[in-house]
Order: sequence, then C-alpha cells, then structure tokens
Amino acid sequence: MGVNRRYELWAEEQTGRGVDLDWVRRELDALEIETPSWGYGDSGTRFKVFHQEGAARDVYEKVAQAGKVHRLTGAAPSVALHIPWDRVDDYGALARHAREHGVRLGAINPNLFQEDAYRLGSLCHPDEGVRRQAVEHIRECIEIAKVTGSSIISLWFADGTNYPGQDDFRARRRRLLEALQQVTASLPEGMRLLIEYKFFEPAFYHTDLADWGTAYLAASRLGPRAQVLVDTGHHAQGTNIEHIVATLLDEGKLGGFHFNDRKYADDDLMVGSIHPFQLFLILKELVAGLREPELEPQVRRVAYMIDQSHNIEPKVPAMVQSVVNVQTAYAKALLVDWGALAQAQREGDVIGAHRLLRDAFETDVRPLLAHWREGKGLPPDPVAASAGV
Amino acid sequence: MGVNRRYELWAEEQTGRGVDLDWVRRELDALEIETPSWGYGDSGTRFKVFHQEGAARDVYEKVAQAGKVHRLTGAAPSVALHIPWDRVDDYGALARHAREHGVRLGAINPNLFQEDAYRLGSLCHPDEGVRRQAVEHIRECIEIAKVTGSSIISLWFADGTNYPGQDDFRARRRRLLEALQQVTASLPEGMRLLIEYKFFEPAFYHTDLADWGTAYLAASRLGPRAQVLVDTGHHAQGTNIEHIVATLLDEGKLGGFHFNDRKYADDDLMVGSIHPFQLFLILKELVAGLREPELEPQVRRVAYMIDQSHNIEPKVPAMVQSVVNVQTAYAKALLVDWGALAQAQREGDVIGAHRLLRDAFETDVRPLLAHWREGKGLPPDPVAASAGV
Amino acid sequence: MGVNRRYELWAEEQTGRGVDLDWVRRELDALEIETPSWGYGDSGTRFKVFHQEGAARDVYEKVAQAGKVHRLTGAAPSVALHIPWDRVDDYGALARHAREHGVRLGAINPNLFQEDAYRLGSLCHPDEGVRRQAVEHIRECIEIAKVTGSSIISLWFADGTNYPGQDDFRARRRRLLEALQQVTASLPEGMRLLIEYKFFEPAFYHTDLADWGTAYLAASRLGPRAQVLVDTGHHAQGTNIEHIVATLLDEGKLGGFHFNDRKYADDDLMVGSIHPFQLFLILKELVAGLREPELEPQVRRVAYMIDQSHNIEPKVPAMVQSVVNVQTAYAKALLVDWGALAQAQREGDVIGAHRLLRDAFETDVRPLLAHWREGKGLPPDPVAASAGV
Amino acid sequence: MGVNRRYELWAEEQTGRGVDLDWVRRELDALEIETPSWGYGDSGTRFKVFHQEGAARDVYEKVAQAGKVHRLTGAAPSVALHIPWDRVDDYGALARHAREHGVRLGAINPNLFQEDAYRLGSLCHPDEGVRRQAVEHIRECIEIAKVTGSSIISLWFADGTNYPGQDDFRARRRRLLEALQQVTASLPEGMRLLIEYKFFEPAFYHTDLADWGTAYLAASRLGPRAQVLVDTGHHAQGTNIEHIVATLLDEGKLGGFHFNDRKYADDDLMVGSIHPFQLFLILKELVAGLREPELEPQVRRVAYMIDQSHNIEPKVPAMVQSVVNVQTAYAKALLVDWGALAQAQREGDVIGAHRLLRDAFETDVRPLLAHWREGKGLPPDPVAASAGV
Repeated sequence: MGVNRRYELWAEEQTGRGVDLDWVRRELDALEIETPSWGYGDSGTRFKVFHQEGAARDVYEKVAQAGKVHRLTGAAPSVALHIPWDRVDDYGALARHAREHGVRLGAINPNLFQEDAYRLGSLCHPDEGVRRQAVEHIRECIEIAKVTGSSIISLWFADGTNYPGQDDFRARRRRLLEALQQVTASLPEGMRLLIEYKFFEPAFYHTDLADWGTAYLAASRLGPRAQVLVDTGHHAQGTNIEHIVATLLDEGKLGGFHFNDRKYADDDLMVGSIHPFQLFLILKELVAGLREPELEPQVRRVAYMIDQSHNIEPKVPAMVQSVVNVQTAYAKALLVDWGALAQAQREGDVIGAHRLLRDAFETDVRPLLAHWREGKGLPPDPVAASAGV
Repeated sequence: MGVNRRYELWAEEQTGRGVDLDWVRRELDALEIETPSWGYGDSGTRFKVFHQEGAARDVYEKVAQAGKVHRLTGAAPSVALHIPWDRVDDYGALARHAREHGVRLGAINPNLFQEDAYRLGSLCHPDEGVRRQAVEHIRECIEIAKVTGSSIISLWFADGTNYPGQDDFRARRRRLLEALQQVTASLPEGMRLLIEYKFFEPAFYHTDLADWGTAYLAASRLGPRAQVLVDTGHHAQGTNIEHIVATLLDEGKLGGFHFNDRKYADDDLMVGSIHPFQLFLILKELVAGLREPELEPQVRRVAYMIDQSHNIEPKVPAMVQSVVNVQTAYAKALLVDWGALAQAQREGDVIGAHRLLRDAFETDVRPLLAHWREGKGLPPDPVAASAGV
Repeated sequence: MGVNRRYELWAEEQTGRGVDLDWVRRELDALEIETPSWGYGDSGTRFKVFHQEGAARDVYEKVAQAGKVHRLTGAAPSVALHIPWDRVDDYGALARHAREHGVRLGAINPNLFQEDAYRLGSLCHPDEGVRRQAVEHIRECIEIAKVTGSSIISLWFADGTNYPGQDDFRARRRRLLEALQQVTASLPEGMRLLIEYKFFEPAFYHTDLADWGTAYLAASRLGPRAQVLVDTGHHAQGTNIEHIVATLLDEGKLGGFHFNDRKYADDDLMVGSIHPFQLFLILKELVAGLREPELEPQVRRVAYMIDQSHNIEPKVPAMVQSVVNVQTAYAKALLVDWGALAQAQREGDVIGAHRLLRDAFETDVRPLLAHWREGKGLPPDPVAASAGV
Repeated sequence: MGVNRRYELWAEEQTGRGVDLDWVRRELDALEIETPSWGYGDSGTRFKVFHQEGAARDVYEKVAQAGKVHRLTGAAPSVALHIPWDRVDDYGALARHAREHGVRLGAINPNLFQEDAYRLGSLCHPDEGVRRQAVEHIRECIEIAKVTGSSIISLWFADGTNYPGQDDFRARRRRLLEALQQVTASLPEGMRLLIEYKFFEPAFYHTDLADWGTAYLAASRLGPRAQVLVDTGHHAQGTNIEHIVATLLDEGKLGGFHFNDRKYADDDLMVGSIHPFQLFLILKELVAGLREPELEPQVRRVAYMIDQSHNIEPKVPAMVQSVVNVQTAYAKALLVDWGALAQAQREGDVIGAHRLLRDAFETDVRPLLAHWREGKGLPPDPVAASAGV
C-alpha cells in the first residue's frame, strides 16, 4: 500500500474519532526540535570515548551535520552551541555557514565545568575570582548570542560537592543567586536564561541546582526572563517528570527541554528509546497547554532541544531517530480526545480516563508522519535515509 | 568507671578541642522532640498489623505512654494528635490528662485519607463537595488546636493519582491552592500550618505534593504562617535531605520534621536506625542555623516530631530509642568545630573539611548523655529502663 | 470501517512484512493468563482499603468474577487461590463451581504472613515451632492442589528483618533451605513449586528472598520441580527485568510471572499501565524462547499470572484491562522480524536492531485483536463490555 | 591526654564489656587492604579530569605512592595493577621496585573496555575475533601475575548494551561463559579469578554481569577457583549489600571487595565517606565469618581492595583516609558482643539485638587505633601525616 492510500485510511479512522487533522498537521508543522552541536562529535563515558567514523571534528562540520538532520526530518531547523567547544573567531560567518546548510544557530550553552579553575565549582565557588571568571564567561556567551541571533542562554552548572562538609550549602546558594543576578543584568531585550537542574553527576554528594525546586527558586528570583530547563535524564529514579512539567507551566516558568532517555542515571540515550510512554505523557502536557489561551504563549516559546551523548551508535542516524521519536510522541499527543478526557476526569472514571490516553498512545502514527513528510519532499523514513548520508 | 568519672575524662578531651560544653548542655536542654499518639497504637503494613501486647487502645493510653517516654528521656515533652483517630468529646480534659502525665498536646494532624469520600483525593478532589468536607475537617482541627493550646496544624495529603490521565495535574493544583487559602484564613494568630510532601504512596502514579518544591510553592503562596514539613522518609532514593533542609532554612520556610528512618521507601523505622550519619548531617544544618542570628529565631521554632510505624518492635522502647538517637546525633552536631570548618571550606580543603565533620560524628557522646541524664534524675539508659515500664 | 475490513488491511501490511499471521493467531490462542482471586475482593494500601461496590465477598463470588473476565477476554481460563483467604470445606465443590463459570482453579498460594506467629518470619523464623507451622501450611496447600487439580504452588515469603542485627542472615538462609526441602519432599508428581522474590516490603531492612539470585539458588537446591516466579513489581528501580527473564530461561528456571505495573515500589497497578514498552520487552523474551526447540517446552509451561491490588479502580474492568494489555504486548512481540533482528545484531547495527523492535512495538495491534475476538464471539472491546457486567 | 593513657581508659571499658582485646589487636594486625595503582593517577568524570599536583604519572610513581600509603597506615601492603595502563617491559623489575617501597604487587586487572574493538563488548561481543582478543588479554594478565607473584585476576567487564534489541541476552551469556571457561583453563595452581558485577555504566540498557546473581552463576560454572568480587558502588539504590555478602559467604563464593562509597551511582568516593554504618555492617559479616571454623578459611582469603576515583581531592590523603575508614569500621565490628547478639536474635528481641550492633558502632575506636599505630611506629593520624608527604 502506498503512502497516500495508507494515510487516507488512517485519516478516515481519526476523523471518525473526531480528530481535527488540519490542526494536527499545523501543530506538526510548528514543532521545531533543536539539535546540539556536541551530539555530532565524539563523546562517550568516563571509561572510553569510541571514535565514530564520520564524527564531526569542528563546529563547521557539526553545523553541517545538523543541516543534514534538518534536511532529512524537516523538524530540526536550529543547532545549539557549546562555548568554548564551539568557539570561533567570526560568529557571523558561522551563522552564515549555518544558513547555507539550512539551519540557524540556536541556544548558546556556556561551559562552566572544564576549566581547572572550576574544580570546586563555578558560580558557587568559594573563591570570588573564580565566580567572576564564570560570570564573565556567561557574559561572553550573551555577546555571542547577540551576534548569532540566538535568543536563549542555556545554563547548566556542574556545581556541587563530593563530601559532606566540603562546603556550606547556604553560602554556595547565596553566591549562585548573586552571580545569576549579575548575569541577568547583562541580558538584552528578547533573550532568555534557561536554568537547568540535575540530580547528580559530576558532583556526587550534593548538586547546587539538584531539582526543579532549586532551579525554580533561582529563576523566580531573576524575574520573567529566567525560566527552568527540564532535562529528561536529570531526575531521581521514579520521578514523575510530566507532573513537574505541568507545575512549571502553571507557574509560567517552563522554558525548555533537553530531551534524551535513560534507564539509570543521566545515560543520554536516544530520546524515547527506553521510556516511549513517558515521552508521550510529557508532550501531552504541552499539547494540553496549547489548548489553553492563557498558557499558549508560554508553550509556543518552550524550546525543544535534544541533548544526548552517543557512545556506540552513529551520530546522524541517532539524532534523526531522536527527532523522529519526538515527532511520533507529539503526534500521538495531538490525537488525545481532550473533551472526553476532561469528562472522564470530572466523573472520576479512573480507567476510562486512563484509556483515553492509551487510545492515543496505541495509535500508529507512521501513516501520518510518512504522508506529512511526502508533502514536504522529505524521505518517508528519515533514519533509513540517514544511513547513506 | 562511673558516669561522673567517664564524663570528666570526656569533657576534658572536648574542652581541649575548644568545645564550649556549657553551650552544648544548654542546647541539649533546649532540644524537644514530639512523639506521635499513633506511634503507641497498633500499626503495620498493608500485609499485616501485628498486635503488640501493651499497645495503647485509645488516646488516653497513648498520651500516658507519651508521658512515659518523656519521663524516661526528659526530651519528649509533647505528643501529636491525629484527628479523627484521637477525637474525644472534651479536649480540655485530654489536655489536663496530658499534663498529669507530664506532657502537653502538640501538633494536630487532620486525617484526610480514610473517609470513603477521599478515594480520589481530598483538597484536590474533582468534586467540590469533597473539597469542602476536607476544608471543614481542617477547620475542625484548628478549633481543637485552640482548645489544646497547640500551635501547629500538620498537613499531609495522600492526594494523587494512580494512572496516567486519571486527573489533570494543573486543575488539581489550583484546587489545592484555593482550598489551602480558605484554611489559612481560619488560622488564629500564633498558629502555623506545616505542609508535608511525599514522593509516593498511597498514590502510585503522581502525588500532588510530591517534593519540597511543590510544598514550598504552596507554603509560599499562603504567607508567613505556612511552612514546609520535612519527613525524612518521603524522598526519592539518593535525595540529599540535608541540602533541602538548608535551602528551606535559607528561604525561611523550614517548619519542622517528621523523623523516622528507611532503607527503601516510607518504611517508618526507628529514627537513625539505618542511616545514622545522614541524621547527623541533617541536624548539623540546624545547629549551623542556631549560630546565625538571622536564622536562629526560625530554627528555634522548628518542630522536631517523630513519625514512625512500629510493626514488629515494642512501641515504648522503640519510641525511646528514637528520641535517644535524635539526641545522640544532635549532641554530635553540637561538637563540630565550626570555625575550623569554615576555614577549611574557604581554603578548598576538601578532605580537611570533611574530616572535621567526621571528627564530631566519630565522637562517642554516651558519656555526655549519661551525665546529662543523671543531672536530671533520668535513667542513664532510657531504652533499657523502658523495657520494664 | 468494520472489524473485518480493518483487519484485512492490517493483515496485508503484516504479510507484506513477512509475518506469518497463522502462527501469530495460533500463539494468541495459546496465551493463557491466570487471574487472582484476591484481585476481586477489596484491597488497598496500609492507609485505606476503599470498599468497591460489587467487590467479591467470598471465594465463590471471586471465582464467578474470574469467570466473567474469561468470558469477556477469552484469555483468562483459570483463577489462582490464596489459602487461608479462600479456604472452603469442599474444594471439589469449588472446582465444580469454577467449571460452571467457565474457568478452572489455578495456582495455590499459601499465605505465610498473616498469622501472629509470623511476626519474625515463617520458614526463616528463629523458632522451630513456627517454621514447622509454616511447612504444615504449605503441605496443606499441596493437598488442596491435589483436589483442585492445580499444578502450581506459588510461594511468596514476607520473611525478612526490619533492623540491622535483628537476626542472622546465614542462619535464616539455612532454615529456609531446610524447610523448603521438607516441602519439596511432599510434592506429588506433576506439581511445581514457584519461588517468588521481592526487593522489599513488608520487611524493610532485608528480605530473605530479595532478588532473583536468592530465589534461583533456592530453586536450584530443590531440583527440577522448583522454579523462580518473577513478579514485575518486585525489583529495585532501574532493574532490567527482561534480562533476568532471559537468564532464568537460559538456566531452565523460569517458572512464571506475577504481572502488574509500578512506578515506584510494589505498587500493584494494572499490568502495562505505566511501562508498556517494558512489558513488550519482557514478552519478547518469551516469544524468542518459543522459537528455540530446546527452550520451547520450558516456555510453554511458564505460568502467566496477574497479581494486582486495585485500590481506587473497579475490579473486573481493571482485570480485563490487564489481560488485554498482556495480549496487546504479546501480539506486538509476535510481530518482531526475528531473522532481520538476528542479522542486525550479528552485524553490530545498534540502531537497526533497536528499530526492528520498535517497529513491532509501534504497530497498532487493535485490528488484529478485535478480529481475533470476533472470531471467538467475544466483545470487540472487553473493557468497555466489562463496565456493564 | 596522651595516646597511652587514653587507650588504657578505653581498654578498661572494653575489657569490662567482655571484649578480648588481644584478639581484636591480632585481627587488626591481620587486616590488609590493597590499594589500586589507578587511584594514584589523574582520574575524573566524563565531564572533566582535573589534574592533581603530584598525581603519579606512571606505574613506578603509582607504586611508590602505594608504598607511602602503607608506610603511613601499616595496613596497605599491596597494590593492584591495571593492564595495559600499568604495562611495563619487566614485571620482575616492577615487583622489586614495589618491594623497595615496602609493598608487593597484588591483583592484576585486565582492561577490557578501552580498545576500539570493545565498542560492543569484550567476552560477550558478537564477533568471535574480538572475544578471542579479550581472552588473549586475560591470558596475558595471568602470565603477568605469575611473574609478579599475584594470586588474583580481577575481572570487570563493561559488556552490555545501550538499547533494547541491540543484542541477544542469551547469546551474549553463552559467549561469556564459554570464554570464561577458556580463561579458567589457563589459570595456574593457586591463582583465583574474581568476577565483578555492576548494576550499570558504561552500558545503559543492560549489563551482562549486572548483579551478584549473574556473577555467582558464572563463578559457579567455573569451579572453585572462581569467586565473586563485590564492589560496594555497583548496586541498585537500596540494595542490602551485607545480605549479599552473607549469601556469598554461605555459598563459599565471596572472593573479595572493591571498596569505595557512593550516594547515587558508581560515584567512587572515599570508602565510608557517605554510609559509614553500611561499611560497618558489611565488615561485621566478615568478622562473624571469622568466628565460624568452616567459614574462616574462606574469610581469611577474602581480598580487601580499594577502588576509588578521586576527582577533586588529593590522591594520597584520600587513599589513606579510605584505609583508615576501613580499619575504623573493622575495629568496631570486632567489638560486637557476639554471644549476647546470638541470644537476643534467638529470643526475638528486635530492639535488643539491634542495639548490640549499635553499641559497637557508637564506640569511638580512635584510642585503639592510635595506640595500635604507636606500637608499630606509625603516625597517630596518618591522614594528617599524609598531607606533608
């Protein structure tokens, strides 16, 4: 059966369920997933970085590979940078290079953990000089963002301690908040700070921004231009991430995602490869937000970014697979029967409400995605197509 | 060697380390640990409640047993109540009964999970009538607290869902915050709401107040009379509880503790029986707070409460053991060399700073506690003494 | 589109992929899922058992409800008993009652945790008298199994300790192994012992049979008539259950499953409601085993049993949903392209091999199941149908 | 108070409790803790390896530093090697170098995870050539061990997969067992294989030897010269390690330890720095084993090895601190009143038995250790002394 015939039959079923397929396709069109430059170079675990044939060697090659991913998926129009990993002399030239490859430069990620000075922290460091150095580095990133046209500074701090007593929790917190206020003061109009949290690693006793609560409090102190960044691999085992997402949305503080998957810790596997249902449940909260007028503007600005570290799998196919997995889960979330769900919830119909979500999740959306791709001149199976790139 | 001689030798060592033993003893005098009425009755797991010989059968017996624990330890002068478990006709009479047993009535804990109406939640329930019933029950507890002279309403909500889709996270959150505001409006001068959070159980998909962040946001919305209650058994595996305690202190929102221990989930074991070093690290944050003038008033009001569920061990000895374990860890925390610790932290001396905490933890404080008890006419080994009670 | 037309289109796709649909349907026919009598009565958490309207009140009603589940699903032809919960005077009469309701009596589960004598354990108890009592109870269950025609004795021990030092690990282990040997000696030809393990609860410091390794060693000591029972909710967070299943299969020691789902601990939720992909990955190991002649006999004897505890959801629909979820995951596992998978694995094609599993998982098998049901005169949506029962 | 006077008072107390201090001191004398060569060089996390001033640059410097640790502690007479990290032309010369620094060469650790060939595994790899390469490498290590006089080959396999479907669990298992049998055949008389397991990392979906059960089954298949190696950081959160230790002892399969501490995953922190009570509980099982004639020979051969990765703390002091922490916990375990404990356990005295362990743990053993060191001409505080080395 061809793509068109398969889609027609699929569409007939969905329309019969009351789904507005025009809306679904418009929202698929609007879904943009940023890929990270560091996902195209060699990376690995503390035990070994396996060199991948064809792995990008510099930021120009990384941007070019991001361009391939977008050409294959039609859904990954920007690429995030890590500074100083991606430092170049001329960011204007890099931005042009990106445009030539069909993408734009996205979030700028200051690296605050690989200088020797940061052994005991960056913004939380006991030494004022180190904190100043870190603040200056973030300001440098803000300047870069101005040139590249990026609107997001994405902040992840490796700050923490390895041993009880090593440092003072409250003193570190005050240093962090003070330094973040200095950074925020340098932020131009239209640029946002996204503050990431992480349960542990590389700090093993405490992490200064260990959970959404600590990140929220920091973002809250900094005003409307600071929001929280949710990395799906940065939680304690069992944490209900979709609940956190809903809470942050409700507080107007959901800034974006670093998508990846994990079974154990911050494993940085391909998005949705271990817990596809959880990915669907997270995206379902975003789709629900789209449908509420007072939340929609916030949801429209949420940055969907991939952050994964390929150790043994080829880079471009892995990135394409992740983009496809986000699209797949998003498409399923778009099929939820929201009216029936709200009614079942109101009536306390526990199983009925649960089944309405499952109905959407069980639906095979490959006919939809293949058809959507064909309409845009994209390969019907972008992962298969990526192997030959 | 007798208690006095052993203490003299011990005191000589500590004084040599620069410890101010008068201060230590004053702070030990000031340490008050509340025991829960429900810790004296039969309790257990979902699989079986083993009946304990001598377990209290009603609130009068429970209060009498709390009195015994205080007589044996000198450190447990109040007893928390659970309503309706401890409902009586005349709370004034109950308060007098408590005084006759040497204790006072402490925190009032509304029970919002054992009515059939609460199957889908209490303050978060989809049905307005159920929410109203729950608000009324908390108001009843406030009235009881006025009569008993209690200054704390301790709120734990079992609210949550068991299945994805069962209810709407954000709608539940709004219901909760609205209902809490109604409750707060009924709070008389001098009474506090302590809001507890819990990672999971009895809800198994999401819990509305799942972590300190959600409880903090609620308390924050309610103003200065609402604070957060930390139950040491209510966290994801690996969570750094002492870091949460420090953060809440820094925000002025640490209201109190429900102490117990656990290896797995909310196991409700005797305090400090599994992770004695963690108990010390938590109490160390409180002692650090005592030493800062702007934090001291908050720390002085922190309510230390025990919340444990004895399944196989005798009730009164288990409670005494827990009180003793808190005292032990607290006494060790009082021995920390704070000046040297601050210096090591400033200098980035990772091992040195850690060792300063370990020095305090390794110290055997039994000579101090035995001497302190003798000075108050208490048995030197209250657990041993409790067996015969 | 009708059930037939939908199935035809679906079958055309699958046949095109090389799937042998006759084999798939035969294996669906062969899939039998046992439901537990205790899943039809009131149950709950340690905080509250909510009474469900229509919950079965005695074993006769429970068996009748199991009959309904089988009538609705065509896949649940037997019901497990718990003794003494389901103790009756005449087990022959109970077996006839079951047959009248279209089902047979399945595994017999001795209850070794609800007598007061078992406060410190059953087969591991320090007291020989208690151990003897427990052995006698299991022997009673063996006698019952002879009458009911059951071929499985399903052993779960709540044995463990709550505090370090409470008992001696090795002494308990020897008591356990000795008692199990006594029990095995009483086992008639054709009857199997399935030994279950559990990470924790109701014991909170250690559990004597805490993981598959301890259960395996016990089963191994007892010879070929003892095997291991895997309860999907009885593992540490992050445990790879499908790997354990494969290992036990490889050792000839996989006896059966207690299916349920969980996000945190032993939450006993509906099967597949939280981690549907994990359920698929587990069943994929069984399907793989079916395809190997030396494993097939073992796989054919694996007992698929549901063990869940409904707290807030209606009993019969929840059980039907679980049966359907197992069927759904199993049907997907039957669609895996094993030849292509083996080749991708041999070639080290990491993403390719992973995608072959995902292809099967993403496939919507509802057309298949609806058609399979229609062919058997079953309702196309058994959960919906169960609401009116 | 001087070391002698303090010890005398301490000894008086302990003798009064019935402790046989001669035995305690003899067992302290017998305690030997091996340190790892890789603990003296730069190491870190996947995010950053901070260079430490004075970190050893080659195996000769590493061995020299191990010599310092032994000179300071008197308890670390051997050093483990990692091949090829520590590959030299003349192992005889290296052994002499070690002796000159007062230590001997200990366990040989084949490195089976840093060749590009091992991207998909070593002994479990789908390709026979890679498996052969890995077998050859282990055989090389056996040859080295013959020259260095080492009696232990310590095997840790990073083998595992990152994605569901990537490889076949059972096929990998058979490859592993077959290759291990080949290796075992090369083992000379008097040499042991210790097989380590790990919950996860660097593999993130499944690890072939993921838990003690898988390692036990492998060791069991290989006969008496293969045993299990327990790394204290290689378990799921909440795992009761001391129970595993007791089980392996009971089966005659406890070969040794890799000691370190962790709060989250395989954090490789200083031994006992996070969970000192757990370290005591583990060592208590060993001391209990010493007291049983049929277990004593096994216990005497258990290899106590440290395996930690210092990221931010200085190497030699961190290693000394770990050795001291093991000694401290071991000394406490030697003080347990075993007779009273057995009686309390027999009588089902839950709290009493628990308190007997706590009594030993609460005892400050620093007077004993300082005196023991003075008697051997060692510095009373080896960590402080190490700073100046």
